[in-house]
Amino acid sequence: MTAQETSTIATDSHETDRVRVPRAALLDWTTRAFVALGTPPAQAGRAAEILVIADERGVESHGLARLPYYAGRIRAGLIDLNAALTVEREGPATLALAAHNGLGLVLAPEAMERTIAKARDIGLCMTTVGGANHFGIAGAYAAMAARAGLGGMAMTSATPLVVPTFGSQPALGTNPIAFAVPTGPDGAAPLVIDLATSTVAWGKIEIARRAGHAIPLGWALDEAGAPTTDPFAAQWLTPLGGDRETCGHKGYSLAVIVDVLCGPLAAAAWGAGIGGIRGESRPADLGHWFLAWRIDAFRDPDAFYADVTALLAELRAVPPAPGAPCSVLAPGDPEIAAERESRIHGVSLAAPVVAELRVLADSLGLPFDLA
Amino acid sequence: MTAQETSTIATDSHETDRVRVPRAALLDWTTRAFVALGTPPAQAGRAAEILVIADERGVESHGLARLPYYAGRIRAGLIDLNAALTVEREGPATLALAAHNGLGLVLAPEAMERTIAKARDIGLCMTTVGGANHFGIAGAYAAMAARAGLGGMAMTSATPLVVPTFGSQPALGTNPIAFAVPTGPDGAAPLVIDLATSTVAWGKIEIARRAGHAIPLGWALDEAGAPTTDPFAAQWLTPLGGDRETCGHKGYSLAVIVDVLCGPLAAAAWGAGIGGIRGESRPADLGHWFLAWRIDAFRDPDAFYADVTALLAELRAVPPAPGAPCSVLAPGDPEIAAERESRIHGVSLAAPVVAELRVLADSLGLPFDLA
Repeated sequence: MTAQETSTIATDSHETDRVRVPRAALLDWTTRAFVALGTPPAQAGRAAEILVIADERGVESHGLARLPYYAGRIRAGLIDLNAALTVEREGPATLALAAHNGLGLVLAPEAMERTIAKARDIGLCMTTVGGANHFGIAGAYAAMAARAGLGGMAMTSATPLVVPTFGSQPALGTNPIAFAVPTGPDGAAPLVIDLATSTVAWGKIEIARRAGHAIPLGWALDEAGAPTTDPFAAQWLTPLGGDRETCGHKGYSLAVIVDVLCGPLAAAAWGAGIGGIRGESRPADLGHWFLAWRIDAFRDPDAFYADVTALLAELRAVPPAPGAPCSVLAPGDPEIAAERESRIHGVSLAAPVVAELRVLADSLGLPFDLA
Repeated sequence: MTAQETSTIATDSHETDRVRVPRAALLDWTTRAFVALGTPPAQAGRAAEILVIADERGVESHGLARLPYYAGRIRAGLIDLNAALTVEREGPATLALAAHNGLGLVLAPEAMERTIAKARDIGLCMTTVGGANHFGIAGAYAAMAARAGLGGMAMTSATPLVVPTFGSQPALGTNPIAFAVPTGPDGAAPLVIDLATSTVAWGKIEIARRAGHAIPLGWALDEAGAPTTDPFAAQWLTPLGGDRETCGHKGYSLAVIVDVLCGPLAAAAWGAGIGGIRGESRPADLGHWFLAWRIDAFRDPDAFYADVTALLAELRAVPPAPGAPCSVLAPGDPEIAAERESRIHGVSLAAPVVAELRVLADSLGLPFDLA
């Protein structure tokens, strides 16, 4: 299987009409877009990078496609671009931060950096961030720890789109869980795992809408809470596992774990109390949760790298099922393949996303030189 | 909906032919069984309690039904009943322990106690345990932290039964994730969430075998890796989410997170390298991972209790879907209902499990007074 085939099978990149943009050009334009929106120039590059990381990993649902959403919230005055993190509580290995409705793409990376610094000192750090806004792709934060040579986890609450088992209305966000560890010295080639605790992320519904494709039964529910395959009728998402018989109550329970850590523990809103869904004009007040640990607090790092590398190789060597579309992949393999393609050929963007960015650029008076 | 109905819908207790045993009698008999198997008397009560906690919460798959398995491993000399935990590495907030093939039901509670003690001191502790054996129900360990007034998580690797996405052979255990927090002072009424990262735990297949019921499509695979509804043909389990279209790669990824934390990080085996499946005569060498944190390191505890309580109440108040068999449950509600029933009427055991315990009792020369 080639890298291109991997990426076609297991990432978001199902749309045929696409544009490739060199990473540096994409990062530069996105940075200028954030500055034009009023983001302090010293911070705009960081916000841009979180979005570009998603697209270059093939996770289009969390990349540039989301910029018009962030832009709309910023322009409506619903995000405070000048807010700074404050420390609400601090212990040797713990940190409770408040984000005061600042831009998640800027303040969440800073929170993870502080987490990493404390974990480097004492071996472990757990951090909550309350009063926050969407922070983009959760995997980027876990990967920050891994690239610094530490293990890391990240979770975030999100606007309510997911319907609990037996329910008809949403009460939870897609509440992702991300995990990363280095597989070599200096944080080389990290294993990065990142998953929404819903069956799919909302971005997957948007991708099907742009492509005009039906969605598989079990992904989404309509306004009344009934299952649907029409992406335009889809309003709400199912928890991972689908219905009760296929154990969707487990995805629901995972989402509740994330909500407790990012809501009540982080002094933020939770569930249906989180704002910001579909044009709603109140602050999100969501929360994040971060964990970082030194590998050598638990194990000789070289032995750890060797074992994780062997673990991933053993997964790839599992005999494939008859009729499987490809060999067994280790978690993160599709994203690594997409990153490699992005480096060689440029970051892949769907044509409808590029069209939306052109509209945004025009409205900001920004030259548009991506296509 | 009555508590009994809740427990019927959402716990393991689907079998009609059942026996109720008072908790104290069950704990006493199980303790004597462990002593008869050679467990030091000072430790046998702790091992017995972990099994009884599972049955009284309605999680029959991890209760007394597993005692014959533990007994078989102990009698075959595959578990060292005299092994003690050793500290391999220790930092202010971190602990790497080795269990030297000791009984998981005894050494894992001790490891969680040490985790809680360190977290109480410094705010947070993360612990790995390598060289370990099955520790029973993961939720019991997270609940230990919550009952001590802290937040807690527990994970464990397990014998390989779960087939990775696109694969035909098992390479991962059911690798559960458990989480608990207090919802009041003194650890009162904890929220406890505990889920295997497979669609179902193996014990659910055993329950269907005992009951002679078909299993839903998507739970299990046969010897060749093909989906089956026959519990006797079922040999392997699917990851949570089922196949690729319904996002089983997410359950697979969650299982890998658990395997990395409990295998390479804990200096234990992982994946197919874990022993102990179906009569196999080598040590399990699996691993556990524990986390505990002070609530007040992040939030005023009373505000936290109030918010978690409100979060759970809001979930229960979500309008039910048309045709739903009951109202929306908060995670842990079925187990709380089962605990209440157990306190009033005794712990419920399936008749076939009682029959197996009678055979075990006879072989140990132990009076059998449970039925």
